[in-house]
Amino acid sequence: MTPARLQDVSEEELLRRLFPLFGGTTGSAEVLVGPGDDAAVVAAPSGSVVLTTDSMVRGRDWHDDWSSPTDVGHKVVAQNIADIAAMGAVPTGLLVALAADPATEVEWALALAEGIAQAAREAGAPVIGGDLSSAGEGSIVVGITAVGDLRGGRAVGRDGAGAGDVVAVRGSLGRSGGGLQLLLAGRGRTHRDAPLGDVDDPLARAVEVLCRVHRRTEDVPWRAGPEASAAGATAMIDLSDGLVRDLGRVARASGVRIELDGGALAAFTTGPLTLALGAEEAMRQVLSGGEEHSLAATFPHEVPDGWEVIGVCAEGPGEVVVDGEVPPVSGWDHFSG
Amino acid sequence: MTPARLQDVSEEELLRRLFPLFGGTTGSAEVLVGPGDDAAVVAAPSGSVVLTTDSMVRGRDWHDDWSSPTDVGHKVVAQNIADIAAMGAVPTGLLVALAADPATEVEWALALAEGIAQAAREAGAPVIGGDLSSAGEGSIVVGITAVGDLRGGRAVGRDGAGAGDVVAVRGSLGRSGGGLQLLLAGRGRTHRDAPLGDVDDPLARAVEVLCRVHRRTEDVPWRAGPEASAAGATAMIDLSDGLVRDLGRVARASGVRIELDGGALAAFTTGPLTLALGAEEAMRQVLSGGEEHSLAATFPHEVPDGWEVIGVCAEGPGEVVVDGEVPPVSGWDHFSG
Repeated sequence: MTPARLQDVSEEELLRRLFPLFGGTTGSAEVLVGPGDDAAVVAAPSGSVVLTTDSMVRGRDWHDDWSSPTDVGHKVVAQNIADIAAMGAVPTGLLVALAADPATEVEWALALAEGIAQAAREAGAPVIGGDLSSAGEGSIVVGITAVGDLRGGRAVGRDGAGAGDVVAVRGSLGRSGGGLQLLLAGRGRTHRDAPLGDVDDPLARAVEVLCRVHRRTEDVPWRAGPEASAAGATAMIDLSDGLVRDLGRVARASGVRIELDGGALAAFTTGPLTLALGAEEAMRQVLSGGEEHSLAATFPHEVPDGWEVIGVCAEGPGEVVVDGEVPPVSGWDHFSG
Repeated sequence: MTPARLQDVSEEELLRRLFPLFGGTTGSAEVLVGPGDDAAVVAAPSGSVVLTTDSMVRGRDWHDDWSSPTDVGHKVVAQNIADIAAMGAVPTGLLVALAADPATEVEWALALAEGIAQAAREAGAPVIGGDLSSAGEGSIVVGITAVGDLRGGRAVGRDGAGAGDVVAVRGSLGRSGGGLQLLLAGRGRTHRDAPLGDVDDPLARAVEVLCRVHRRTEDVPWRAGPEASAAGATAMIDLSDGLVRDLGRVARASGVRIELDGGALAAFTTGPLTLALGAEEAMRQVLSGGEEHSLAATFPHEVPDGWEVIGVCAEGPGEVVVDGEVPPVSGWDHFSG
């Protein structure tokens, strides 16, 4: 029996199968009108709303050989949640736009939805609406819009860092980039690999950790965003394109020189990163690995619990240095590669 | 000289060229944090926010031979604005997600943005953020999320119609479907055709009117949505998939039988529709033509200025009849065609 494809079921039948997957996510008292009408209505108790959108494209942002549809669904939501957190807001809802080749298997779409629902539940952000479109042969684009509320707090931009502020990170660094490196080198663990179970192999476990972070985006510290805002963070950013590149944006927007401490950064290379990649590549990933979706922020004084200080802001041009030197890291550009 | 493509310019350069196009749209006092940070922040004075998302896919939702990129940008925004209006809300902001083949010409993307900006200005809804992704060969997906505010009014769903309510339409019917019919038949006017200028040919003008509506979605009556809410509308819907199909959704959600008056509907066939397509096809388009993005609503008593009464709600099963008969109109399904 050939598997059912999107073109084999009506849109209404597909929605009937998708909605229950989001069921555990739609019970929020803040959702005033949920999926199924022209538009959703969500409470905005702070009198303002925080909004971001981020998409993943098959063959560009994920490879089917590496990532399961559940991985993809989890990752695209987590990326958006991180952007909401980086403003100091709490996620309150998600919109899902799926454009897919009609030959896509229905099971694939349902597994994607399961990953979206997992990440939605983790972040307490219900799926409030969406859109289905057919796309060209082989094409799948998953777009998420995330909505957030500041809970009466301040929005924290990228432009508020001042000379004398400390720079701190909440969450891991370099793991997603490390996982990508392993997958590119054919050393990674994909969704097709059998679970490790209780195999006692530290290297295999390290590879698994890094590749899971790359495939799914694990443990986005989204609660830390509003905590940082409340603790007086002067600037904050989601680490999506690599630590140095993203802090460069803070440095330029704020007009400060960000001076990072190589010793403090080395602490992020220990464990699975160094075990799987060696110390040198581990440090390269800490500085430039993308898609980590941890948070970086600047604080005038103390940093909240769980944040690690990695440097300071100084007077000077908008740039980032590590132990006084501009690090030789490249960036990522969506169109030119 | 070959035209520049997205892959030839950096993402930052592209954004530098795109942002000024949206410049006239970002001056709203309600935009607290605009494009360029992790997320945007928009005022939600009603303490809630209305949200919808709708995408257009190249080769599925438009054909390059028929529609210019400016047409596409205008249409995708207008579709979203209509959904916001259909809840009774005023549009307050737009997010734009573009996933495009890196070989797409830069001029194409800029012209798309110009269309988005035109529709954004018409609706007073600034572009507050977005996302750029690369996509596969030939693939372009334009996703919009629209945000709205109820201005203290009621959200109007699809489920509030009651027996005895009148059914009314604000805006045209069948024009977009008529334009599509003409284009499919090779009788349409595309963006490549020379402007008509002062040509005195009523048929050519009729064809132009219908095709423009199909290509761009003209004159979405978005102000009428909040007016209908204030006037006591019990149910409201954006007409995206055809009058009978969309009113069927209201009928089922509300548990009423919607009885339409063929004579009242015939009034919508006059002018360009009948001139270009003949009376019979004109009526077919009025009943089933998609993508019109006019509004339909039910009212307990009087209808506001500008709305045309086309029928009544009665006790009975959730269905739509015209002069007592279930009309033989088909629907539209995104995946199965």
